[in-house]
Amino acid sequence: MTEPGSLMAAEMAEQPQRLASLVDRADDVRDRVRAVAPLRERLAAVAVIARGSSDHAAVYGRYLIEPAAGRPLSFVSPSLFTLYDADISYRDVLAVAVSQSGQTPEITDTLERVQATGAAGVAVTNDPESDLAAIAHAVLATEAGPERAVPATKTVTTQMIALAILASALGEVPFSAAELERVPAAVGAVLDDPEPADAAAEALAGASRIVVAARGFLSGAAHEAALKIKETCGILADGYSSADLRHGPIAAVGPDVPVLALDAPGPAHDDIDELVEILRDRGTHVLRMAPGDADLPLPDGLPESLQPVAAVARAQQLARALSLRLGFDPDHPAGLSKVTRT
Amino acid sequence: MTEPGSLMAAEMAEQPQRLASLVDRADDVRDRVRAVAPLRERLAAVAVIARGSSDHAAVYGRYLIEPAAGRPLSFVSPSLFTLYDADISYRDVLAVAVSQSGQTPEITDTLERVQATGAAGVAVTNDPESDLAAIAHAVLATEAGPERAVPATKTVTTQMIALAILASALGEVPFSAAELERVPAAVGAVLDDPEPADAAAEALAGASRIVVAARGFLSGAAHEAALKIKETCGILADGYSSADLRHGPIAAVGPDVPVLALDAPGPAHDDIDELVEILRDRGTHVLRMAPGDADLPLPDGLPESLQPVAAVARAQQLARALSLRLGFDPDHPAGLSKVTRT
Repeated sequence: MTEPGSLMAAEMAEQPQRLASLVDRADDVRDRVRAVAPLRERLAAVAVIARGSSDHAAVYGRYLIEPAAGRPLSFVSPSLFTLYDADISYRDVLAVAVSQSGQTPEITDTLERVQATGAAGVAVTNDPESDLAAIAHAVLATEAGPERAVPATKTVTTQMIALAILASALGEVPFSAAELERVPAAVGAVLDDPEPADAAAEALAGASRIVVAARGFLSGAAHEAALKIKETCGILADGYSSADLRHGPIAAVGPDVPVLALDAPGPAHDDIDELVEILRDRGTHVLRMAPGDADLPLPDGLPESLQPVAAVARAQQLARALSLRLGFDPDHPAGLSKVTRT
Repeated sequence: MTEPGSLMAAEMAEQPQRLASLVDRADDVRDRVRAVAPLRERLAAVAVIARGSSDHAAVYGRYLIEPAAGRPLSFVSPSLFTLYDADISYRDVLAVAVSQSGQTPEITDTLERVQATGAAGVAVTNDPESDLAAIAHAVLATEAGPERAVPATKTVTTQMIALAILASALGEVPFSAAELERVPAAVGAVLDDPEPADAAAEALAGASRIVVAARGFLSGAAHEAALKIKETCGILADGYSSADLRHGPIAAVGPDVPVLALDAPGPAHDDIDELVEILRDRGTHVLRMAPGDADLPLPDGLPESLQPVAAVARAQQLARALSLRLGFDPDHPAGLSKVTRT
């Protein structure tokens, strides 16, 4: 029996090195994508197949992939294939299946089905020997190493960067090669600075519900932050787009539900700023995660399009600190197993 | 000042008639869709633009539209256009914008943008004189009449049926014309039987969090049920696919978080049944919404593909009863306005 949270901490700490190794392999990753992707003028759509944390990595990736590919991006509903046996043609579609283990049968079955109807299939997975990798036309290995803690950490941030590199293989992306190379150190800086997460965990320790809000590039990080808190703390946390939150659920956010707002300079900033003001006027306790002077600081020097990776690392740190403070073992939360067979 | 909940009740009660009128116009709706939709062999993808309850109607519609069209369906991220000004081609795409008011600028702007890049645009809206209807290539008016209560009710179920008819214009659907014609009476039967919702409201009155779970066709109804409860009761309710729930968030569902499970005979049934068993083993209080002998009965005689409309009506009834029991006015929940300008 290891000390509670030690596995998660060790795996979080590997992230700078694992991310750096992936960034070093960016040219190879791009070559693999280009070898199978439909020609730009033929590409009908991009389709993503993912669940859980991998889905959140893909929500982030979407903001890069859809503009880079220049075509609509669909999140596949696996049940259309695995339950309803639907006859849908994915010809001229680039299908990207994202799965840490590569062993979730539903993800593998769905990729196999859409490939059979004409999609070019790419697997983003930590295990290049997995079932998913075996059937995909191309494999982007995240090479995050074995994951023993139940909450996915290094596998998620490496998936995010793999998807960012995938996007750069398809077209223009809003970050430079130099900015991409800055990500590992930026994540390292977050991990080397645990005090803000400890303080935030103290502030959140009495909450039974938490809302995490963001917009645009940071939306995926908000969903992932909420899932990490749910998984490790048994707190019902939910991630929302600030636009969706204002479209109804805000009525359920009162003074007893703290809100974690993710923010970065960019086009989404005003929207988040306005939401924070509305919430504070309603008496809601708002914690901000943002570059500069914030409750949970994000590193300076990353563009908005890469901040989500640092934000996910910050959220891991927060979830782990909160879980420990509540007396749980974040390495082994109740009721979870690593491979979900649905 | 009207009696609390009377507006919502009156609008819910209009549903059988409004739905029947829409079903009567099914041929006209299909003609409008076929007049603008890309030819089947050219269709690259379908794209849906929606937020809030309209998005939930579209989550339902997806299970009909994607198989009928035979091409991938994407839920558009409006912020890619409205915030990030992305250059994405939607040529050969059928874009379906769903908005009750037709006055949410974000939805209208996004449809306008994707039409400008080559999409065929359809507006599903209650207001054929709205901005959205004015710019769309085709308008499917739900004709649900004016909505004065804040929680959307009749506009949602008419959107669902409009999308079901839209699907039938694109290809095969898993319901017959006779089954479609049975929907208005089935919704009426639910509304004429308020006792189960009152009993469920009594059982849920002490909860501060509620999880609503479903899979496949009923997923959209689960999200809508959760939103109605959030909006009208200030309870943090969330809808989950049972597959996603088991992939992590189940750790946050303990004995103090009741679960509402939506179920209907069909391929998704076993999955829900298994989830209910797991939850009950964990001490969770589970309420079932299903045809036959259930806490919240759904009508017999509708196929799985049309049950979601009756399930949404049942959920409206539950949300209203729970809101009243908690001392709120479901017609005018705090912190909401009907038109969201994001």
